[in-house]
Amino acid sequence: MREPTGTGAKEKATMTEQLIGDVADTRVYQEVQHFYGRQMRLLDEGAVTAWAETFTEDGVFAANGHPAPSVGRAAIEAGARKAVEALVEQGIQRRHWLGMLEVAERGDGAVVARTYALIVSTPRGGRAAVHLSCTCEDVLVREDGRLLVRHREVNRDDLPPQ
Amino acid sequence: MREPTGTGAKEKATMTEQLIGDVADTRVYQEVQHFYGRQMRLLDEGAVTAWAETFTEDGVFAANGHPAPSVGRAAIEAGARKAVEALVEQGIQRRHWLGMLEVAERGDGAVVARTYALIVSTPRGGRAAVHLSCTCEDVLVREDGRLLVRHREVNRDDLPPQ
Amino acid sequence: MREPTGTGAKEKATMTEQLIGDVADTRVYQEVQHFYGRQMRLLDEGAVTAWAETFTEDGVFAANGHPAPSVGRAAIEAGARKAVEALVEQGIQRRHWLGMLEVAERGDGAVVARTYALIVSTPRGGRAAVHLSCTCEDVLVREDGRLLVRHREVNRDDLPPQ
Repeated sequence: MREPTGTGAKEKATMTEQLIGDVADTRVYQEVQHFYGRQMRLLDEGAVTAWAETFTEDGVFAANGHPAPSVGRAAIEAGARKAVEALVEQGIQRRHWLGMLEVAERGDGAVVARTYALIVSTPRGGRAAVHLSCTCEDVLVREDGRLLVRHREVNRDDLPPQ
Repeated sequence: MREPTGTGAKEKATMTEQLIGDVADTRVYQEVQHFYGRQMRLLDEGAVTAWAETFTEDGVFAANGHPAPSVGRAAIEAGARKAVEALVEQGIQRRHWLGMLEVAERGDGAVVARTYALIVSTPRGGRAAVHLSCTCEDVLVREDGRLLVRHREVNRDDLPPQ
Repeated sequence: MREPTGTGAKEKATMTEQLIGDVADTRVYQEVQHFYGRQMRLLDEGAVTAWAETFTEDGVFAANGHPAPSVGRAAIEAGARKAVEALVEQGIQRRHWLGMLEVAERGDGAVVARTYALIVSTPRGGRAAVHLSCTCEDVLVREDGRLLVRHREVNRDDLPPQ
C-alpha cells in the first residue's frame, strides 16, 4: 500500500523491519529524538567537524538535491563546511527541524528512523521563512554505545525522489 | 482560566481528565508521538486506506473547515481520498506536522491528545510554504493493543472555532 | 568547537553539564516535552496567569528582542499580558512550537533544556506564516515535584545574539 520513496528505501524495504513498541524501545525512540536535537544544532551552529562525527567513518549522505551521494565522513564534512561557509557569507541562519519520527528495528540490529525535515531560513535583519520541506530516512548504528548515522537519504519535496 | 475551543472540547471538559505523569504514562506519551508519525506519513504518502484504519470503525473527524463531520471510517477514507487525488492532480506534496503534544487520561480509559498541527505544502518544482496552522484534539482508544482515533477535532487558526 | 551563543550561555558553559542518557532520564526528557506542550498552549490560548505560573517566583525571561530581561513572575506575566492583548486586538493567533530538544543535567540539579522555537502567526481570515525563528535555552528547576522555568533566554535568529 505504502510505496517506499527512492532507491535506498526500496533496498531497505526488502530487509526485515520490525516496528518498535515494547518498553526497551521507548528508550530508543527517545534516544533518536535526543540524537537529532544534538545533531542538527551542531550543524546549524556551524560545528561542522562535530556534526560529521555523528556519521560513521564510512557513512553515506544521499539526497535528491545533490548530484551524487557523499561517501565517508571526510566527504560529508567537506560538503557541510562549504554549505555553512556560504550561509555565513550571506548572513543566513538555517534551522533544521526533524519531526514526525517513526523508528523501526532492522533484522541486522540497525535502527531505521524516518522523519519529516523542515528547513527554516532567516537572513540577518530579515524575515524567517520555510526554505525546504523534505523527508529523511536514516540507518542508525551503535558504536561504543552511541548512535551514529551510517546512511542518510534526504528527499526534497519540490524535486522528484531519487 | 483556559477556555476550551469548540463544542467538542466543551463536552470533553465536563469529563474527568487526569494529567499523565508517572512512569507507565511515559510510555503512552511516546506511543502517541510514534502513532502520529506513522499516521501522518500514511496520509501524506497517499496510503489512504491504511490511514483510515487508524480511526475506529465508528470514528468521527470534525473540523471547523468542513461543512459537517465525517462519521465512520468509510466516510473518513472517502474524504481523504478526494483530498489526496486533488493534491496529486495539482502536483502538491503536503506534510502534516503534529507537535506540542499534551496527553491526558480520561476517566473512561480513553486518552485525550492535544497537538498543534502545521501543514506545509510544496508544489513540484516550487517553493515550500506553511499552508495552515491548526489545533488538533483527539480521543484515542485502544483496540487489540493498538491506539486508534475515535474522535478528532481540527480547528484551523484562520477560521472561527466550531 | 561549538560556540555558546549569548552571555547567559557563556556563563552556563562554565558550569558542569552532564548529558542525560540513562533510563531515569528518559523520563526527564519526556517530562520536558510535555511541560512545553502545556506551557506554550497556555500562552497561545491567552491563559497568561497560568502561563506565568510555569516560571519560578524569581524567574527571569531574557530575549535579544527585548530591551531588558523581565525579572520575577509578576513582570513576566505583565509582559505576556500586554503581548496577548495586542494580538487579540489585531485578530492574530500565534502558535509557539518548541522542538529539537536537548536536555542536560547541571551539577546543581537544575535541568538545562535547549530548543528551537518557531512562532507561527495566523491573522483571522488570513494566511498562516512563519513569524520568527528563535533558539530557547531554559534552566528548569523542580518545585513540589513540578518543573518550572527559572531562567529563559530566547534569541531571535534575525537579530544579533545577546
